[in-house]
Amino acid sequence: MTRLPVRLEKNVYIAAAASAAGKNEAEGPLGSRFDVVSDDDRFGQDTWEKAESEMQRLALGRAAAKAGLTPDDIDAVFAGDLLNQCVASNYGLLSFGIPFFGLYGACSTAAEGLILSALLCGAGARRCAAVTSSHFCSAERQFRFPLEYGGQRTPTAQWTVTAAGAFILSEEKSDAVASGSPKAVPRIAAVMPGIVTDRGIDDLSNMGAAMAPAAADTLTRYFSAGADPDEFDLIVTGDLGREGSEILRDLIASTGRDIRRNHVDCGLMIYDVDGTDRHAGGSGCGCSAAVMAADILENVRAGVLKRVLFVGTGALMSPLTVNQKGTIPGIAHLCEITGEITEAK
Amino acid sequence: MTRLPVRLEKNVYIAAAASAAGKNEAEGPLGSRFDVVSDDDRFGQDTWEKAESEMQRLALGRAAAKAGLTPDDIDAVFAGDLLNQCVASNYGLLSFGIPFFGLYGACSTAAEGLILSALLCGAGARRCAAVTSSHFCSAERQFRFPLEYGGQRTPTAQWTVTAAGAFILSEEKSDAVASGSPKAVPRIAAVMPGIVTDRGIDDLSNMGAAMAPAAADTLTRYFSAGADPDEFDLIVTGDLGREGSEILRDLIASTGRDIRRNHVDCGLMIYDVDGTDRHAGGSGCGCSAAVMAADILENVRAGVLKRVLFVGTGALMSPLTVNQKGTIPGIAHLCEITGEITEAK
Repeated sequence: MTRLPVRLEKNVYIAAAASAAGKNEAEGPLGSRFDVVSDDDRFGQDTWEKAESEMQRLALGRAAAKAGLTPDDIDAVFAGDLLNQCVASNYGLLSFGIPFFGLYGACSTAAEGLILSALLCGAGARRCAAVTSSHFCSAERQFRFPLEYGGQRTPTAQWTVTAAGAFILSEEKSDAVASGSPKAVPRIAAVMPGIVTDRGIDDLSNMGAAMAPAAADTLTRYFSAGADPDEFDLIVTGDLGREGSEILRDLIASTGRDIRRNHVDCGLMIYDVDGTDRHAGGSGCGCSAAVMAADILENVRAGVLKRVLFVGTGALMSPLTVNQKGTIPGIAHLCEITGEITEAK
Repeated sequence: MTRLPVRLEKNVYIAAAASAAGKNEAEGPLGSRFDVVSDDDRFGQDTWEKAESEMQRLALGRAAAKAGLTPDDIDAVFAGDLLNQCVASNYGLLSFGIPFFGLYGACSTAAEGLILSALLCGAGARRCAAVTSSHFCSAERQFRFPLEYGGQRTPTAQWTVTAAGAFILSEEKSDAVASGSPKAVPRIAAVMPGIVTDRGIDDLSNMGAAMAPAAADTLTRYFSAGADPDEFDLIVTGDLGREGSEILRDLIASTGRDIRRNHVDCGLMIYDVDGTDRHAGGSGCGCSAAVMAADILENVRAGVLKRVLFVGTGALMSPLTVNQKGTIPGIAHLCEITGEITEAK
């Protein structure tokens, strides 16, 4: 079943979403839309790792509050992040006491969590949550160089976003209406998990090139099952950046389809890329999570976007295996989101 | 739903399971039961990380062969391991081209993968696979000390098992019968995800103490929903080791229940602990996966075990956060496995 998109038989709604973001992100084009922002990227904590955990806690807490829910109302949470052993998630969500599934999907984790939450809601859970985060300072130290080293970045390098996003999925449409008076309610109509794809990229500073083939594979499988790119108001990848987005558009064009009209990338939406130090754009689990929560889903709720494909992309890169001359496999998970007009409007 | 055990509405069978194991494990009490063993723990590879990937590949390939299946017959695979960025799984399963969900549950990953595979089969997938691994050499280097350092181990330390296990779950009972002529077919009757639990343990060499409270929490929630420990032929934890097993039995006893009669731990089954250098017993994602695949499930298929609780336990420990004076949270995921007598016998 999963090689084709899985069309959900039951209705599964995104009841609420919330985001927490850092200073650079708050100064970007979407700055005013994040639910919580921090002036110093520390969120009151004494380490970057704890700051990242705190962002997850704030995001899930805010999402639950929007939908008028308590942690007891949520049957399971799917969470992951970029840190070794996914510590931002393990510690960040501890206080909620919700049954916990740990994920590792690199920057595709938001989409992976949405897929599994949707499937579990379809299988009988009342409500599930998907939460993820990334932090520039904790990620640079772990994956590349300590910030104090002051290394120069290449033009293809992406900038790890300091942000977290949380989504609460529910079988109850009323949960989604509870948070404000939306014109439409985002529903997950179909999901398609990605297949790990390796095209031999081994440059830690060019993740876009490692992820683009995986995104092309997932989208091509999805379109081949009977959909056309033009059916969608938006095809949102997260996060290929400038380099990877160009490669994806070219790869899709080579299959005879065109996504240039309606393709956007979360990594290019979260920063004003030109003229800043963000090079190829944003990346990190928190990037697509925060952009989806703060922008895309709000536009679905406002009735502006009616049908969206969200393709979460991850570079499954490891400094260790790259040092062992290994390559960087990519993966891309897809969710089809539709806006279901609420009856009250 | 998930706070109580989820009883699966559809029948989901463990169609096949297979294991790959290293030299020390092959010399242990279960040595003759592993499907593939390696004399030098390298499995023909030039790094330990690649050896671990190769174990995953061998285990899933062998499990598929037992059930007479090809990769195309499997709709999704859930996989994870202990290595940073879960590289053993990312690379190890690449060649199968199966839609991939990456997990991080530390040593509980086998149980986490079984739960999600069972839920997805119940939600419409034909077949799903759960795969996990660990390798003594890659884990020691990453979590504690490089082997060359020759550090002395404490008595509470566990020994990371070099092994992988793979499970194929299916809605089709015929898949399970295809692999040999079992007296009974293992069926996943109920699942219960764990809640992250932190009791303040901060000793990297005493993971049993960090995990035991999580196992007690999950088992107590499970029993409170209306089951008695005596209903089960076996309550299998993996992997608390000697220290953690004692703590778990005491914690359960403090709730007025007794599991001393039928509790076993995979970490104490895989090695002849007394008289060897294994201290508190085995650990690592591969430990419970290999013991379940090679021993427990075979005894279910032979009709010897009729009803088993498998509680996969994980220490969500991170060297980084322990160095930051953090503690080690634990988690424990539960699967109830019953043997369904085959009609042919």
